[in-house]
Amino acid sequence: MTDLAESILNADRRALARAITLVESTRADHREAAQALLAELAGHGRQALRIGLSGTPGVGKSTFIESFGLMLADAGLKIAVLAVDPSSARTGGSILGDKTRMERLSRHANAFIRPSPSQSHLGGVARRTREAVALCEAAGFDVVLIETVGVGQSETVVAELSDIFVLLLAPAGGDELQGVKRGIMEAADLIVVNKADGELKSTATRTCADYAGALRLLRARPQDAPGFPKAMTASALHEAGLGAVWDEIRALANWRREKGHWNERRAAQARHWFAEEVKQALLAVLDTPEARARMAALAESVARGTLAPGAAARQMVSTLAGGSAALDAPRESA
Amino acid sequence: MTDLAESILNADRRALARAITLVESTRADHREAAQALLAELAGHGRQALRIGLSGTPGVGKSTFIESFGLMLADAGLKIAVLAVDPSSARTGGSILGDKTRMERLSRHANAFIRPSPSQSHLGGVARRTREAVALCEAAGFDVVLIETVGVGQSETVVAELSDIFVLLLAPAGGDELQGVKRGIMEAADLIVVNKADGELKSTATRTCADYAGALRLLRARPQDAPGFPKAMTASALHEAGLGAVWDEIRALANWRREKGHWNERRAAQARHWFAEEVKQALLAVLDTPEARARMAALAESVARGTLAPGAAARQMVSTLAGGSAALDAPRESA
Repeated sequence: MTDLAESILNADRRALARAITLVESTRADHREAAQALLAELAGHGRQALRIGLSGTPGVGKSTFIESFGLMLADAGLKIAVLAVDPSSARTGGSILGDKTRMERLSRHANAFIRPSPSQSHLGGVARRTREAVALCEAAGFDVVLIETVGVGQSETVVAELSDIFVLLLAPAGGDELQGVKRGIMEAADLIVVNKADGELKSTATRTCADYAGALRLLRARPQDAPGFPKAMTASALHEAGLGAVWDEIRALANWRREKGHWNERRAAQARHWFAEEVKQALLAVLDTPEARARMAALAESVARGTLAPGAAARQMVSTLAGGSAALDAPRESA
Repeated sequence: MTDLAESILNADRRALARAITLVESTRADHREAAQALLAELAGHGRQALRIGLSGTPGVGKSTFIESFGLMLADAGLKIAVLAVDPSSARTGGSILGDKTRMERLSRHANAFIRPSPSQSHLGGVARRTREAVALCEAAGFDVVLIETVGVGQSETVVAELSDIFVLLLAPAGGDELQGVKRGIMEAADLIVVNKADGELKSTATRTCADYAGALRLLRARPQDAPGFPKAMTASALHEAGLGAVWDEIRALANWRREKGHWNERRAAQARHWFAEEVKQALLAVLDTPEARARMAALAESVARGTLAPGAAARQMVSTLAGGSAALDAPRESA
């Protein structure tokens, strides 16, 4: 076993940080080393509770993670916070910033916060985050909180990476109501309406009841314990309701462990990521400037209706097989 | 131009039926002929209003399609009904059966009903249905209604094939409430609670209000006209409320045409199907008995946690590159 692997298993934070930097790298030799490290660490048997957390800007997500994380860390649990943000390449900044966003939590001995690196390709983001989660589990964390800013398909990625998915909402009604992005509500195991304090308290209660009603209209999944998915209120600012949130998360996690859903879901997620990686490797031929240019030209003919999607696909595949013709004009219908 | 293409453009029903049989075939020479036919017909400029319709068994979908279709056909509109049912290979039967399900509509001069053929591969179902829709448009239909039984990912396919997506629900409350399958509600432009008649009328009104409330909690998309997505009640049995449903569909379609969303969506859908076909062609290497066996063996190691997804994917890709090794045991971590 290498020193790095051993240090991680011994919960060495610096080694963990170095290993995450390794899995984040796209350099071929780093990828080799990362794969070898992950293979060494496979089968250590440690499992963290992976909590996915989504919420749009303005819901008080940083405050929630700080208060919630401190509560767990103070209780002696080791908590790691990771972020999925495919947009960070675009905005140029990490959503976890320079950790100043969660200053108290980042200084806690039981907490480990990893800012989101800049990388725009969602496939890369998914792989990197999945591997970082595996490293945190090897390092013996009890809870890994995976945060998503909710851009593009990032919630889908986080839902496929987590054991429990929590959706954080802000109190709102009437005209202020922005509504939830499609695809998020249905992934939620728990909806937490934050900012249930002061003037917003009654609005938060109403918002919570609205979403509880909406959740009842979704068909129950096998992994839904009785009463789940559930909506509740909390105030991260006043540190109120956070214990109840943790109780619900633990109750659901325990129920899933007892009923076998926990292991089933982990196995299904692993299979999913394996199949995804195979697909991405096979589709990598599309990831060259020539292939992208050819795809774009054909897509334009298809969008104009002068070329059928099937015929365009044939042209693309024959281009790839011939390894040429990026500059050919699309052959539209006669 | 071939006779078949010309006959279709002249609205010849038999030619249309023959052409759909051609696009449904998986024989290589039939695929060639189908592609040539679609290329000939590309750019005819005719557009139908494509309505996607989803609803689980028991909501009265057949009765709804028959009553709704007859209303349009009697008003002089030409309506085609197609079905997306990836499960029909499994159940051995078409969801449109032998047309006896919609006897009156199938006999109407303005209606064309095409049962769902047996084919289990969703990619094939999508392509075949998309091409059948294109043929119906070439044949001059005003409305193409694409029905899905809601198995697997079939709603996603139908949503990507239609201009307007309608979700049909049955009145239900309390214990009877089955809830909507995740992913469907968010695709809906219009929710119609059917069976709003007799004893169920008040339950239907409550169900409608519940779903209207839930729809308000979803964030508006650019293609949502003010007030949409919308929930309403109808009774297909008593032919009540169907005119209102048609009015809403037309109002939304007209709004989207005016605002440019109609053409944008059609173009985006065409690009989507082009990209999907390219992907499927590239992923076809996974569609051999040897590749499937190898994938399954690796997936088992991954699910057990003895092999990381990334490492397993590398083994799979090198197997494909070597064209061998289907019988090799997965190389698990040292």
